[in-house]
Amino acid sequence: MDETVPNYTFEDFTPGRRFDFSKRTMTADEIIAFAREFDPQPMHMDEAAGRASILGGLAASGWHSSAVMMRMLFEAYIDGSTSEGSPGVDLMEWKRPVLAGDTLGGHCEVLDARVSRSRPEIGIVRMRAEVTNQRGELVAVSEYINMMRVAAKGADHADG
Amino acid sequence: MDETVPNYTFEDFTPGRRFDFSKRTMTADEIIAFAREFDPQPMHMDEAAGRASILGGLAASGWHSSAVMMRMLFEAYIDGSTSEGSPGVDLMEWKRPVLAGDTLGGHCEVLDARVSRSRPEIGIVRMRAEVTNQRGELVAVSEYINMMRVAAKGADHADG
Repeated sequence: MDETVPNYTFEDFTPGRRFDFSKRTMTADEIIAFAREFDPQPMHMDEAAGRASILGGLAASGWHSSAVMMRMLFEAYIDGSTSEGSPGVDLMEWKRPVLAGDTLGGHCEVLDARVSRSRPEIGIVRMRAEVTNQRGELVAVSEYINMMRVAAKGADHADG
Repeated sequence: MDETVPNYTFEDFTPGRRFDFSKRTMTADEIIAFAREFDPQPMHMDEAAGRASILGGLAASGWHSSAVMMRMLFEAYIDGSTSEGSPGVDLMEWKRPVLAGDTLGGHCEVLDARVSRSRPEIGIVRMRAEVTNQRGELVAVSEYINMMRVAAKGADHADG
């Protein structure tokens, strides 16, 4: 990542454009470590408690799945981009449990994009992310806003 | 936490009931550690990059603020309860930046609660959480579902 060489800028986010996620396997150790810090419910900390719960096994906290999705988004398009962060998410659904050993993947897609009326140097991009497991089942869905700076005037950018 | 002695069960979640959060100060170290793992954008990793961004300082990833909110919820009412987790959130807004040194607090409140039609041993509780900073400014808001088991028949529970 080199902040002086932005990769994607607002202009790259045309409706329908997709960015694929890299695969990532969730280990029991990282599920437990996240839970210990942020969500120490028994089904996120202990295999037997997870099996006894409606989740059916040692299951990642939904917020852990969301944080992993964030990392996937970072690697898919945010790294090196003009992203200025997000004011929030319109939708965050945890559709199925994410269990220890599951391999996650998926993609995100541009829903729509417009330049901010009050801050014309900032574009407002609405995205949808879908996280799937190794059986192709949807485990998490999010729709969220990503603020991206527009390309600097005179910058050497393919779409500028 | 003692799994054999549930504290709150579904019956405790009456609309309007509030649970206060404990205070927690966000350190630069923990902001950077979370960002390194899940959201390594420059404004979450570096003070100067944060000041140069629209966030105005070294700022926690929104997903970090959400994870800290989860921990506050755990301590406020989930620990020892019959919580069975959540299918997702209807709303997750990051209203203001959470900067290194900010002290977070707030509360959550029951919006409504009903027993599941398909699984009468499970109650569906809708909650709203508000996270504030040391100036009383709202930094994060969430509305989400929490599934809670109903009190076991014959269990020694105040509302059972």
